[in-house]
Amino acid sequence: MRAGVVVTGTEVLTGVIADRNGPWLSERLRGLGFDVAHVMVVGDRPADIRAALDFLAAEGMALVVTSGGLGPTADDLTTEVVAQFAGRAMVLDEALEGRIWEILQRLRRRSRQLDEAALRAANRKQAIVPEGAAVLEPVGTAPGVVVEPASGGGPVVVVLPGPPRELQPMWEAALATPPLRALLAGAGTYEQRMVRMFGIPESELARSLEELAAAGVSFEGLELTTCLRRGEIEIATLLQHAAEPAYEAFVAALRERHGEILYSPDGSTVDEQVAALLSAAGATIATGESCTGGLLAARLTDRAGSSAYVAGGVVAYANAAKTALLDVDPALIEAHGAVSAEVAAAMATGAARRLGASVGVGITGIAGPGGGTPEKPVGTVCVDATTDGRHLGRTVLLPGDREMIRERTTTVALHLVRRLLQGEAD
Amino acid sequence: MRAGVVVTGTEVLTGVIADRNGPWLSERLRGLGFDVAHVMVVGDRPADIRAALDFLAAEGMALVVTSGGLGPTADDLTTEVVAQFAGRAMVLDEALEGRIWEILQRLRRRSRQLDEAALRAANRKQAIVPEGAAVLEPVGTAPGVVVEPASGGGPVVVVLPGPPRELQPMWEAALATPPLRALLAGAGTYEQRMVRMFGIPESELARSLEELAAAGVSFEGLELTTCLRRGEIEIATLLQHAAEPAYEAFVAALRERHGEILYSPDGSTVDEQVAALLSAAGATIATGESCTGGLLAARLTDRAGSSAYVAGGVVAYANAAKTALLDVDPALIEAHGAVSAEVAAAMATGAARRLGASVGVGITGIAGPGGGTPEKPVGTVCVDATTDGRHLGRTVLLPGDREMIRERTTTVALHLVRRLLQGEAD
Repeated sequence: MRAGVVVTGTEVLTGVIADRNGPWLSERLRGLGFDVAHVMVVGDRPADIRAALDFLAAEGMALVVTSGGLGPTADDLTTEVVAQFAGRAMVLDEALEGRIWEILQRLRRRSRQLDEAALRAANRKQAIVPEGAAVLEPVGTAPGVVVEPASGGGPVVVVLPGPPRELQPMWEAALATPPLRALLAGAGTYEQRMVRMFGIPESELARSLEELAAAGVSFEGLELTTCLRRGEIEIATLLQHAAEPAYEAFVAALRERHGEILYSPDGSTVDEQVAALLSAAGATIATGESCTGGLLAARLTDRAGSSAYVAGGVVAYANAAKTALLDVDPALIEAHGAVSAEVAAAMATGAARRLGASVGVGITGIAGPGGGTPEKPVGTVCVDATTDGRHLGRTVLLPGDREMIRERTTTVALHLVRRLLQGEAD
Repeated sequence: MRAGVVVTGTEVLTGVIADRNGPWLSERLRGLGFDVAHVMVVGDRPADIRAALDFLAAEGMALVVTSGGLGPTADDLTTEVVAQFAGRAMVLDEALEGRIWEILQRLRRRSRQLDEAALRAANRKQAIVPEGAAVLEPVGTAPGVVVEPASGGGPVVVVLPGPPRELQPMWEAALATPPLRALLAGAGTYEQRMVRMFGIPESELARSLEELAAAGVSFEGLELTTCLRRGEIEIATLLQHAAEPAYEAFVAALRERHGEILYSPDGSTVDEQVAALLSAAGATIATGESCTGGLLAARLTDRAGSSAYVAGGVVAYANAAKTALLDVDPALIEAHGAVSAEVAAAMATGAARRLGASVGVGITGIAGPGGGTPEKPVGTVCVDATTDGRHLGRTVLLPGDREMIRERTTTVALHLVRRLLQGEAD
């Protein structure tokens, strides 16, 4: 069964803000077994929204999900366009009007700017819904609807608000409505699984998959998608329950072939694994960063609760800072250069000691665009992780621009920490 | 004139990776005066790509831009589908084959994994282009094409590769091709201008715009879009040359009304302004961060050349680290709490002193989800900027989740630094 998504909103269409709903809905739909054929971004013009719906219907979608255009103002017209598309009149739902009014009253207590007449008008507009639609209770102030065609064929349309924090819970609510339950009963129950690999080029993985197939490993019932993300390869697989043994056999074969490179057979991220390893060991971590300028510390601390195992870090761009705050011996910098395995190791040791942490990470490299030399071109990065006097260090040459080099360096560093905590050392 | 974008790629469609090309192309097209009506994301299936092209043609687009599907493998079919759509045969361009071969030879010298036969096949496939198309030289290995309909009506189609670092320069090259020059001559010359504001809610700006209109300020010929980004408001305006005086008058009126809140009448970002102010003053900056965990340092150093004015920073999550690395007096933390204006000021001073910088920034706050109290709820953040013994500090209560709070805090901090360097102090 095919499904399509229509994301409305002039700000999204014009690229002023990035759409998060299209990819999110797509992933959910795919997980439910739908074949997502088109995600369309359109502006606020009713004729363009209608054209998108007609196109998706003509292309045979069983389900269409829209996001945005449910606000109280005159240019928020998605529900009305969907009602026309489905051949349904718009009617006032008085009980819904009352429930939205209660929400608006609570908001008004927090803000003195809203005047009563404008509120009443907004309230009424948002309570007018397609006849016979299943109403999705508002998470913000805008209700969503699930609309079936009034007669004959055509897709079921789920109409959701634009803000992701409203859309996401309301999508869950939509799944429980009778029209969607009926559709889902026909879609089969697919699951998405993920494995992650680090340290292998995509072309080599492609060859491995071909060779596994040639060696008789079955991909029957498995729909694989591979992609590069943050310097890692993710293999997402869509499967039905019956293909479970085939999936297990496939992952086992891949693991036998690539060993530790397939570091995450259960789809957990390296961030999650490092957090779990640090917590399990009762360890704390400290960072000494040069070219990444704080990105590794920021990545470690973007997890809630990270204060339990992140002691802190030092961003030492200047050599003087490496010495003053991380105790890197100036003679070491003189002898090997600021970008060297020796300096990375000294930064790791210094970070752990200065911040009183049990694990230290040091990063020094050339993110570019300037600063490269023939021996140490842009992309050269030295990373070191240390605990208890043990070290694990790597010097890598990363491709891409400044942003990519900086981001991939944080991935390299997290994998070194993971392997160090799993007992490896140089 | 209307334009549409078709983004191809199963990974993008399924939400595994986020599309960056749709918004980027949309913004460029809009800046050239096109009315971008639809951005469509489709998978790699030829029938779905063709359906999208047919839909955009039926909707009256004068120009369609595609991204992705130009690789060497069998499922990279965008160029072929576009050729069929435009009624053109696919022909081998031997000169192009030779030029791509040279690129592949260079790549092969860097990697021993590629075998000759596979390379030759890939080379030939990528050199087969629609008859009569303008070829866009590859930035990676895949050439793009600009294709006009073989006869009669239909849009001009620009076919670009998926990786943004290839697509973006090749789009610039496409603009210089005869078919696009002819189209652009008809599109009128629009320009996009931007002003940025910090410290005003969107609802208040909306009221201001209404009141300016009521007071006789003309918006004739100006197409305004406002949006919230990273805690700031951006007002993007599309205008033709004749509306220049109206635009100037509008910005002047807005500035008169909101003064310093409209901090960027020329669209420059606060990041750019801080970098310019630091460079002009020959100053260096150091950061002392708690809840942002290195994000401010990472944001300051994501600019190329930032090593000239960024000394470094300290991420001091633990109180002990605030004392050991930033010289924050434990008694100060005891008296006022770790999240306090006093501690933020001490962190700013300590960061500048320890890193030998002339400007220091201190950040301490509660990013959540845990750690909030009735007096200091989640979102409470104290920021301080200092230079030459002068301080500028603010305690703010930021909305949103952990990620939003951390990101907005870096915006608050950059504005404090900007104002400090412009001479303000508490």
